[in-house]
Amino acid sequence: MRIGIIGGGSIGLLFAYYLSQLYEVTLYTKTIEQAEAIEENGIHLICNTKTHKGSVKSEWFEKWSGVEELTIIAVKQYHLNKVIERIIERQSKNTDFIFLQNGMGHLKFLNKLYTNNIYIGSVEHGAYKKNLYTVLHNGIGETKLALYKGNMSLPSSISSIPNFSICFELDYLEMLLKKLVVNAIINPLTALLDVTNGELINNEHYSSAAKDLFIEIAEVLTLENRETYFQQVVEVCRRTSENRSSMLKDLESNRPTEIDAIIGYILEEAEKKNIKAPISRMLYFCIKGSER
Amino acid sequence: MRIGIIGGGSIGLLFAYYLSQLYEVTLYTKTIEQAEAIEENGIHLICNTKTHKGSVKSEWFEKWSGVEELTIIAVKQYHLNKVIERIIERQSKNTDFIFLQNGMGHLKFLNKLYTNNIYIGSVEHGAYKKNLYTVLHNGIGETKLALYKGNMSLPSSISSIPNFSICFELDYLEMLLKKLVVNAIINPLTALLDVTNGELINNEHYSSAAKDLFIEIAEVLTLENRETYFQQVVEVCRRTSENRSSMLKDLESNRPTEIDAIIGYILEEAEKKNIKAPISRMLYFCIKGSER
Repeated sequence: MRIGIIGGGSIGLLFAYYLSQLYEVTLYTKTIEQAEAIEENGIHLICNTKTHKGSVKSEWFEKWSGVEELTIIAVKQYHLNKVIERIIERQSKNTDFIFLQNGMGHLKFLNKLYTNNIYIGSVEHGAYKKNLYTVLHNGIGETKLALYKGNMSLPSSISSIPNFSICFELDYLEMLLKKLVVNAIINPLTALLDVTNGELINNEHYSSAAKDLFIEIAEVLTLENRETYFQQVVEVCRRTSENRSSMLKDLESNRPTEIDAIIGYILEEAEKKNIKAPISRMLYFCIKGSER
Repeated sequence: MRIGIIGGGSIGLLFAYYLSQLYEVTLYTKTIEQAEAIEENGIHLICNTKTHKGSVKSEWFEKWSGVEELTIIAVKQYHLNKVIERIIERQSKNTDFIFLQNGMGHLKFLNKLYTNNIYIGSVEHGAYKKNLYTVLHNGIGETKLALYKGNMSLPSSISSIPNFSICFELDYLEMLLKKLVVNAIINPLTALLDVTNGELINNEHYSSAAKDLFIEIAEVLTLENRETYFQQVVEVCRRTSENRSSMLKDLESNRPTEIDAIIGYILEEAEKKNIKAPISRMLYFCIKGSER
């Protein structure tokens, strides 16, 4: 199987490296410079201090035409709009898609695509892009996939790659909601407070703040089984207690954050349902104002 | 007139220096070490890069017995409880009191005091304690005083000291409320966001956050003439735009903050009136959790 991956960030590099173990992978990048660096060096993956090298083709994104059987979209939410436009202009074959974005904001774009099968993915790996072709795999997690439309037609070999487990969920909406809730609590609070994920459960005051925020969000999203959702937040904080969240790292590196895809979505939902969400609004403004 | 000042922080030192120009001042300090340093060196005040020396007596606070005609309480809100207890035990004469605390939390202690005249003060100077006996006067503002109980019996000379203007307000509650609102907006937001006061009006997102918080607080305090209160917040941000707020400096220096006296008071009022104050709660938890 040929796989095209759009987006040369940490997740794009991670997927390209692992999938290249079994498939013919082409990574489409935003800059020609990165494509050339990958063509020259392959992709280097560092895991447990050992460096592994993967053989991956790379092209500038402008060259993408959807000739691969599967296309994985690994760009951030805030670049998605532009990427979708180009896809609609250029798609030459009926390729399947996997979307890996955080939040729920990308769902509204998906019905614009001419294609049979679309999957939604939720990535729980920790990965850090060291340079144009090197990615540090510093948290071995898993990828959850769920069908958004069409039929499940991925080869079963895709879930057999070591350190890169893939599992399937029945309900994409529930899967995304779970991740959204985790992200909506952990990301803005850790980014604002400049603390590791574990602090949200170890510091009693931060933990009260997280609880208040959770209650507000659960109301907006009309969540059932709230205790389960909250336990998942606590569990992720515990498991990744030493990690700095992606939003905190984005602010530190003067990159835009995914606040629009995460808290922005909560605020849209709150407005639709005519529910007040004062804590989410406050966090939205605080993070938005801190972006450079 | 003899004046006793309790508290050798920046405000205590500032008042001791200026009032020693006209009166016999004794500064009562928490540590014997500081009292000895002041006895030896006097108080040094640095203003516009020039150092001035004031002649001030100093004693350990345990020696206080209220023999001076006027006692100024310049300790932080969170030390007040202990200070009031000692005052009640030791007061030997009928001294007048001036209380200079932020917030409103100190009001509940005042009726415990056996005394004729009590004033409430609101200090708008910028001052920074450089060492045990040196204070930097880096923002020349003014002190507002209002009578809490008894009669106005201060000598008129008290408002004639250069760079240390004192003015009188009729309504102590309104005076404190104005300061409370300014503090409740500027302090927690700047401390949490790690920004100067000016950023709250220059950054459009922070400014939206400040506005949301103001609306919540105005509701809790049932403020009339809201626009006036809000304009005052904006005005203070503009005038002190390069300053880092006291709460931000407290967090940076690992000192306790005055969050209980400021947002804690708002939360108490909200509970009394059965009004929800989700933004204030969130800020309270975030600041409280950040104190070391």
